[in-house]
Amino acid sequence: MTNVTFRQKLRAAAEANRSWLCVGLDPDPALAPTDLDARAGVDWIVRFNRGIVEATADLVCCYKPNLGFFEPYGEAGWRALRETLRAIPAHIPVLLDAKRGDIGNTARGYAVALFETLGADAATVSPYLGRDSLEPFFSYPDKGVFVLCKTSNPSSSDLQDVLVEGPDGGTEPLYCRVARAAQAWDQHGTLGLVVGATHPRDIARVRSLAPGVPFLIPGVGAQAGDLVAAVAAGADAEGGLALVNASRSVLYASRGSEWQQAARAAAEALRGAIEAARGGTTGAGALREA
Amino acid sequence: MTNVTFRQKLRAAAEANRSWLCVGLDPDPALAPTDLDARAGVDWIVRFNRGIVEATADLVCCYKPNLGFFEPYGEAGWRALRETLRAIPAHIPVLLDAKRGDIGNTARGYAVALFETLGADAATVSPYLGRDSLEPFFSYPDKGVFVLCKTSNPSSSDLQDVLVEGPDGGTEPLYCRVARAAQAWDQHGTLGLVVGATHPRDIARVRSLAPGVPFLIPGVGAQAGDLVAAVAAGADAEGGLALVNASRSVLYASRGSEWQQAARAAAEALRGAIEAARGGTTGAGALREA
Repeated sequence: MTNVTFRQKLRAAAEANRSWLCVGLDPDPALAPTDLDARAGVDWIVRFNRGIVEATADLVCCYKPNLGFFEPYGEAGWRALRETLRAIPAHIPVLLDAKRGDIGNTARGYAVALFETLGADAATVSPYLGRDSLEPFFSYPDKGVFVLCKTSNPSSSDLQDVLVEGPDGGTEPLYCRVARAAQAWDQHGTLGLVVGATHPRDIARVRSLAPGVPFLIPGVGAQAGDLVAAVAAGADAEGGLALVNASRSVLYASRGSEWQQAARAAAEALRGAIEAARGGTTGAGALREA
Repeated sequence: MTNVTFRQKLRAAAEANRSWLCVGLDPDPALAPTDLDARAGVDWIVRFNRGIVEATADLVCCYKPNLGFFEPYGEAGWRALRETLRAIPAHIPVLLDAKRGDIGNTARGYAVALFETLGADAATVSPYLGRDSLEPFFSYPDKGVFVLCKTSNPSSSDLQDVLVEGPDGGTEPLYCRVARAAQAWDQHGTLGLVVGATHPRDIARVRSLAPGVPFLIPGVGAQAGDLVAAVAAGADAEGGLALVNASRSVLYASRGSEWQQAARAAAEALRGAIEAARGGTTGAGALREA
């Protein structure tokens, strides 16, 4: 008997909730609902994340906690992360946004931390150190490994857009090299790629290089990426899902006492917008193929 | 009154101990001294790290705990890391090897976690996401920010050696672009660069591009880099230290009950070898200039 893989779990959740929406769990005390008293320690985080999960669990295909929002609290932050993960229903996959990348037995340690200690279904990783740095992550056949490819921030062009030699003797941006290389590193079909919504043309380019690979598309909402263009570029006929991540625009839809309802309304609107955008793409039937 | 900066603290420790040796605190249960009972939970880590620090604190200029060895224990690992940091004498700087890299307020969260919550003097970061991802780290004028440039692992060539356009219209490897860019990102003179001992010629090339910048040189010892060539290439006349990191070869010099003495002997031998290697370089006088 084999375990359910991340890709299967993701596809099942996407089908059950008719959603490609991934909600990022980024607890930021500066933006938190006022009635949670976020300035007084770490306790608000679990109450907040539980509230968001309760309000949105039937609208999403994935949750993506980002460790950068938990680690400022040190060990208490890791405990809050663990308690957050317990609040997520078992059928919704968890993608831990950690962007780890290290070598040898250190990389192994990070993979154990994310996949075993925390029990995540998938994680984000950074490609700068090359194949052997990601091999410990790719060695889990039932997990998902999202490699940073073209990110949504303005400075992503500093290195990711630098021109390098392409396979035909011409040039291509470094992120295309990463998209090719990551597929060569992928031992068990567990690869995903991170491509920011702020660069729809780049998403299309990566999709042409990596058919069938799930994409994580951050940058919608607070980062003002073009949702329709991003979904159209990220969906594909070979069944590669395009997870559209929203964090702040859902989490902090309201700071008032109705924050759960506001988050739900924002998630519902985004799910609908993604669904509408998918209607015009070749990927429209992808969910039903699951 | 200004704070002591990381660079000042590093230079003072290097001078006091006549050492460019950095000991990496990488607690690995598979290699731990047998009398510490490392298979039975997390408690051995603090006893082990304390023992290593006691045995070597007068022989090093820096300690470098790597978070990848603590995080498999979850929140207990973070607690063990915090207790490890408390065991390090105040005059020895702590460089947290975390290789973080994320965007916007997430990067800010990681900087707070490493520099404020954990109180590190310096940290390693990954450059793939570009300038804005590292800006929160570079905003601390008294800390050190070691950017991954050319790493010691075999797969470092996958991306770091890819040829890109250089400033003179010719080509250069991507790691040279990173060495140039990181200096442009450095707001307060807090930059350091990670260049592996396994590539002495690459160290020399980075040193020519980045005079005066401290280098962290991993890959000596267990990774079999050429110590003499690495030190000769990394030292420079403008006072940029070359921290030579050793982890396994010091920590696990013996698994028997004399592990502290063995670690001390290994550290002493490495310190001497570095000192001898520096004798033949232009950087020989750098310590006395401090």
